[in-house]
Amino acid sequence: MTAVALFGAGRIGKIHAANLAAQPGTRLKYVVDTHQPSAQQLAAQYGASVTDIDSALADPEIGAVVIASSTDTHADLILRAAARGKAIFCEKPVDLTLERARQCAAAVKEAGVACLIGFQRRYDPTFAAVKARIEAGEIGQPEVLVVTSRDPGAPPVDYIKRSGGIFKDMLIHDFDICRWILADEAVSVQASASVLTDPAIGEAGDADTTAVTIRTRSGRLCQINTSRRAAYGYDQRFEVLGSLGMLQAGNHRPTEVTAYGGQQVSTDLPEHFFLERYRAAYALEMAHFFEVVQHGATPRTTVEDGVKALELADAATRSWQENRLISL
Amino acid sequence: MTAVALFGAGRIGKIHAANLAAQPGTRLKYVVDTHQPSAQQLAAQYGASVTDIDSALADPEIGAVVIASSTDTHADLILRAAARGKAIFCEKPVDLTLERARQCAAAVKEAGVACLIGFQRRYDPTFAAVKARIEAGEIGQPEVLVVTSRDPGAPPVDYIKRSGGIFKDMLIHDFDICRWILADEAVSVQASASVLTDPAIGEAGDADTTAVTIRTRSGRLCQINTSRRAAYGYDQRFEVLGSLGMLQAGNHRPTEVTAYGGQQVSTDLPEHFFLERYRAAYALEMAHFFEVVQHGATPRTTVEDGVKALELADAATRSWQENRLISL
Amino acid sequence: MTAVALFGAGRIGKIHAANLAAQPGTRLKYVVDTHQPSAQQLAAQYGASVTDIDSALADPEIGAVVIASSTDTHADLILRAAARGKAIFCEKPVDLTLERARQCAAAVKEAGVACLIGFQRRYDPTFAAVKARIEAGEIGQPEVLVVTSRDPGAPPVDYIKRSGGIFKDMLIHDFDICRWILADEAVSVQASASVLTDPAIGEAGDADTTAVTIRTRSGRLCQINTSRRAAYGYDQRFEVLGSLGMLQAGNHRPTEVTAYGGQQVSTDLPEHFFLERYRAAYALEMAHFFEVVQHGATPRTTVEDGVKALELADAATRSWQENRLISL
Amino acid sequence: MTAVALFGAGRIGKIHAANLAAQPGTRLKYVVDTHQPSAQQLAAQYGASVTDIDSALADPEIGAVVIASSTDTHADLILRAAARGKAIFCEKPVDLTLERARQCAAAVKEAGVACLIGFQRRYDPTFAAVKARIEAGEIGQPEVLVVTSRDPGAPPVDYIKRSGGIFKDMLIHDFDICRWILADEAVSVQASASVLTDPAIGEAGDADTTAVTIRTRSGRLCQINTSRRAAYGYDQRFEVLGSLGMLQAGNHRPTEVTAYGGQQVSTDLPEHFFLERYRAAYALEMAHFFEVVQHGATPRTTVEDGVKALELADAATRSWQENRLISL
Repeated sequence: MTAVALFGAGRIGKIHAANLAAQPGTRLKYVVDTHQPSAQQLAAQYGASVTDIDSALADPEIGAVVIASSTDTHADLILRAAARGKAIFCEKPVDLTLERARQCAAAVKEAGVACLIGFQRRYDPTFAAVKARIEAGEIGQPEVLVVTSRDPGAPPVDYIKRSGGIFKDMLIHDFDICRWILADEAVSVQASASVLTDPAIGEAGDADTTAVTIRTRSGRLCQINTSRRAAYGYDQRFEVLGSLGMLQAGNHRPTEVTAYGGQQVSTDLPEHFFLERYRAAYALEMAHFFEVVQHGATPRTTVEDGVKALELADAATRSWQENRLISL
Repeated sequence: MTAVALFGAGRIGKIHAANLAAQPGTRLKYVVDTHQPSAQQLAAQYGASVTDIDSALADPEIGAVVIASSTDTHADLILRAAARGKAIFCEKPVDLTLERARQCAAAVKEAGVACLIGFQRRYDPTFAAVKARIEAGEIGQPEVLVVTSRDPGAPPVDYIKRSGGIFKDMLIHDFDICRWILADEAVSVQASASVLTDPAIGEAGDADTTAVTIRTRSGRLCQINTSRRAAYGYDQRFEVLGSLGMLQAGNHRPTEVTAYGGQQVSTDLPEHFFLERYRAAYALEMAHFFEVVQHGATPRTTVEDGVKALELADAATRSWQENRLISL
Repeated sequence: MTAVALFGAGRIGKIHAANLAAQPGTRLKYVVDTHQPSAQQLAAQYGASVTDIDSALADPEIGAVVIASSTDTHADLILRAAARGKAIFCEKPVDLTLERARQCAAAVKEAGVACLIGFQRRYDPTFAAVKARIEAGEIGQPEVLVVTSRDPGAPPVDYIKRSGGIFKDMLIHDFDICRWILADEAVSVQASASVLTDPAIGEAGDADTTAVTIRTRSGRLCQINTSRRAAYGYDQRFEVLGSLGMLQAGNHRPTEVTAYGGQQVSTDLPEHFFLERYRAAYALEMAHFFEVVQHGATPRTTVEDGVKALELADAATRSWQENRLISL
Repeated sequence: MTAVALFGAGRIGKIHAANLAAQPGTRLKYVVDTHQPSAQQLAAQYGASVTDIDSALADPEIGAVVIASSTDTHADLILRAAARGKAIFCEKPVDLTLERARQCAAAVKEAGVACLIGFQRRYDPTFAAVKARIEAGEIGQPEVLVVTSRDPGAPPVDYIKRSGGIFKDMLIHDFDICRWILADEAVSVQASASVLTDPAIGEAGDADTTAVTIRTRSGRLCQINTSRRAAYGYDQRFEVLGSLGMLQAGNHRPTEVTAYGGQQVSTDLPEHFFLERYRAAYALEMAHFFEVVQHGATPRTTVEDGVKALELADAATRSWQENRLISL
C-alpha cells in the first residue's frame, strides 16, 4: 500500500484524487492546499487528512507525491520531495525557467527517485495508438507532423500574465507531442504569433494565436498551429506523414449521433475541454505512475521530457519576440 | 446507505458489482452464485460476503437486489424479492414465457417495489441523445426506424438451445429500442429468419439471421435486421426518419485514429462487444437504479417494458415459425 | 455511326440526349414527343429533326432507339422497335402490367435485338464498386442487404394516380438492386406500407412509406425501407453483410466541406435528387448501351431484369393490400 | 462564336481542349505544339488545324488563346498575344522570374486584354464553397489557414531541374490559396524544407518536403505543409479558423463505399492526382474564361494574382536558402 500526498486541491487536483482512489494498493493520505476549504473538502471525500507541506513530506509513510498546485510551486516541491526520496508525479510545466527546471532534473537524478511529468496526452488512447502504430512501422519513416491545438476560450488575463506566455503555458504540450511522435530532437524553431482574439492578451505581453515550425536533426518538419479560442470548442488533432502513409489523431465526441436536417448533416462538437477530452488519459497516466512506483515500470514522461519541452517553449518565445529563426 | 445483494457473479455480474462500488451511499453486502469460487472472488474484491438466496432476502438490511444470474432464475428471484419488499434490478429477459413475465409484473405492482429491467441500451449516451432529440422535436414525427444489430459471433450452441431462440435472446433489446424510440406500440409483427452462419444453429431449432418488420398503432414502420455474426465485430446502429429530418445512432470506436495507407483510408473497428460498447450505459443504468431506490426517481426501464418486449419476441418467433404476419 | 431516335423530350430525355451527344460514333437523328415545342428545342440543340414514331421507326438508318417517354408508351414502343430490328434502350418500368412486360421480353427475344432497361443505379460508380468487390469475394457470401431509398418529396398526386403505385414506381429500382446485389431470386416478399407524409396519397389509393422484406432461394434476407419524403433530400444507400465483412454504399455530396460552428460540426446534404445523384450513372449507362449496340457487349440491364423487378413490385403490392406474405 | 488557338497539346492541353469543346459559342481553330504528332491528333479530335505561333496570332478571327505549353514559353506567348489584343488564358506560373512576370502584367494592362491565370483550385466546387461561406460571414474574421498539399509522387528529376524549385513549381498554387482565402497580403514568409523522399532531388538543388509560415498585414497566420510524395495519393486539404468557427476543405474520393473488414473500416483513397481531383475545376475555369471573353465577367484569377503568388514563391525560396524570415 502506497500512501500518497496530494499538493493542490483545484480542478486538476480533483481529477488526480479520483484516479488515485481507483488505483489498487494506494491510499490518499494527505491533501495540501493553501485554500483550506478546498483541501478539507477533497480530503473528506477520500478519507484523507489535511496537512501542510513540511508535515506531508516528513511523514516516512508517504511514498509518493502528486503535485497539482500552481506552476510557481512545482520546482520547489520537486526539489523537496526528491530530497526526501519520494516518488514524484508533477503537472507540467516543471517550471517557467529553464535553469530551475534543469535543477529539478539534476536533483531527481541524484536522488534516484521516479519523477513523472503530467504530459497526459501521451496516455490518451488515440494518441498512444498513433505512437504505437508508428513504432510498429505502419507509415515507415515519419517525415512531417502537423499539430492543431486550440482551446475553446482564453483563460483570464490575470492567469495569462503569470503563465509564462502561450508557448510555455499552452504549446508546452504540443512541443512534447512533437518530440514524442517524431522521436527526434529539434535543431531549429521558428515561431510566429498574433493577437487576434482579445487585445487585452496583447497588452499583457502575450499572443493568442501561433504558428510554429520545428526542424529536427534528421530533417523532419513539424508545424504547430494554436489558438486560445475556437468557437466550436477544444480542438486537439495531429497527423504524421511517413514514407509509407499517414496517421491522423482526430477529436473525440460525446456521442456518435449524426443528424440530417433541412440544411445540413451534422455531428457533435468535440469533447468540450481538456477535462472531458483527456478523461481516459488522466486515469491511464495515474495508473502508469503507480506501475512505476510499485512495479518499477519505466517512466513514460520524465522530468527530462519536461526540460526538453521547456527548451522548445523558450526558443519559440525568443523566435517570436526577435522575429527570427532560433537554432538549438 | 443501501445494502445490496447481488445474484450472479458471472460476466455481467462483475460489471454490475464494479458499477455498484462506484455509487455513493451503497454497499454490496452479499454475493450469491451457485458457482462458489466466482462468488467468493467477487465478494472479496468488494468487501462483501457470500451467502445463499434465502439468507440474502431474509436480511432486513438489504434494500435492493441486483439479479444477474441465469435467465431461468429471473422470475423466481423477482417474485421472492418483491414479496420481501426489496427494490429490484433484473437483467433482461424477465422470463422466457410471457405468462411468467406477466406474473412478475403483477407481483411487482402489488408489492409496490421499484423494479428496473436491464435494457442498458436506453442509458447509452448516443442512444439516449437520439431519444432526447426526438422528444425535443428535432425531427418532427418519427416515421421509420431501421435497427441494425449484429454480434461478432454466435454463443455456443448449448447456450442457444436454452436461450429461448434468437428473438427472445438477442432481439429482445431491439424490440425494446423500437418501443422506446417510436414511443408507440406494435399492431403487427412480421419476421423472417435464416440459418446462414452455422448449420448447428439450425439443427438446434433456431436461426442466426433475421429480418423483422413492426407496424405501430400510428402506422410507423420499424425494420430490424440482425445477425449472430459480423466479421468486423459488434454492430449496433439505428436511424429514425421523421417528418423534419433523420437521426442516426452510430457505432463507437476505441480510438479516433484514421490511417491513410497505400490501398485505403481506414479507421478502427467498432468497440468489440457489448461489455466494451455499453460500458458507459451499464454505469449510468446502475446510477439510475439508485436514483430510483434512494431518491424516488421514476424508473426508465420497467418490468412492463420487459413484458412488452417479450410479447414482441413471442410474436416474432411465431411469425417466423408460421411464416405469416402476426397481429397483436 | 449509329443514328438514334429519341422518344420523349422531358427531364430524363434531355439527360439521355446530352449523354448521347458525348458518345463517339453516334448521332441523334430524331426527337419524338407529343409536346412539339419540347421536341423542337431538344432537336435543335443537338442538330436532330423532329418527327413522329412511325417515321422514326421506318427509317432504316436508325439503328437504335432511346425510349424516355411516359410509362404507358414503353411497351408499345419496345414492341414496335423490336419488330423493326432496332436496338432498344428503355427507361424503367417496362410496363405497369406483368403480362405486357413479359410480352415485351418475348418480342425482344424473338427479334434478337439488344434491349437495355434504364436501371441506371447499376452504373453508378459507388454501387458498381460494391458489386465488383462482392464479386471479387471481399465479403464472402452475401447474407443480408439493407436498402434505404428516400425521395426529397413526393411527386404530384396526379402523377401518383397514374404511377402504378409506390412499389412499381419507386421501389422498382430497389427490387432491381436486390436481385443484382444478392445475385439471387426472391422466394417470398412481405410488404408493409403507410401513409405518413400526405393524406392525399392515401386517398389516391397509394402509400408513401414502405418496409419490405425479401427472402431469396438461398435464404438471404433483404430489407428495403422507402419514403416519398426526406426533409434532408435524396437518400440512396445500401449495405451488404457477408460472411467476411460488410460493404456500404453511401450518399454522394456536392462538396467535401466540413463546417465547425458553435453548435455542431456539419457537412453538405446529399446530392439533391436523381438527376444530380446519378449524373455519372446516366452517362455510363448510355456509354454501355452503345458498347452493346456497336461492339456487341453483353447488356448489363436486360428486359428480363425489367420483368423480374416488376414481378417483385407486383408481389409487394399484393402483400401490402392483402396484408400477408406472398410466395413467388 | 469565339475562335481559339491552343498552345500546347500535352496532358493539360488535352483537358483544356475537351473543356473548350463543351463551351457553347466557342470553336477550337488552331492547335500549336512543337511535337507535331500531338498537335495533329488533338486538332483532328476537335476539327481544328495545326499551325505555328505566328500564324495563329496573326489570324484576326482568333479572339482568345489558351497557353498550356511549357513554362518557359508562357511569358513570351502572353506578351505576343497581348500585343495582338487576344484574350489570354495561361497556365501557372506566369514565368519563373518575377521581373518577366511583372512585364507580362504590365503588357496585359496596357493592352487592355483579359488575362486569366490557371489557378484552377479557385474553381473547385469544394474550395469555392469554402471561399463563398467565408465571404458570407459564416466563420467571422479568418485568423488561421492550414494548407496540406501533397503529391502522390515526385516528377522526374529532369523536370525538377527546370521547374524553378518546389516553391515555384508546386507551392505556387498554395500561395495563391493563401492570398485568396485569407483575402490579405503577406508581410513575411518563413520557409523550411528537407530532402526526405529522394536524395536525387537534393542533388538537383531542390527539396521535396516543405513547411512554410506566412504572416499577413492584419496578423493572420498561414501554415503550408507540402510533400512531393504521399504513399496514399494526392492530398489537397485546407482549413480556415475564424472568429466564429472553422471551415475545412477535404479530399474528394472516387466512390462513397465504406468497407467493414476483419481488421478495419475503410474508404477509398483520395482522387488519384490533379487531373482527377480537379476535373470539375478545369471545366468551370474554362467556362469562366469564356464568360470573361464573351460576356465581360470580371476575371477571378488575374495575371496580378500570378505575380503575387510568384513573389511569395520567390521569398519562400530565399527564406529556405538563407535560413531566415523574409519580410515583404
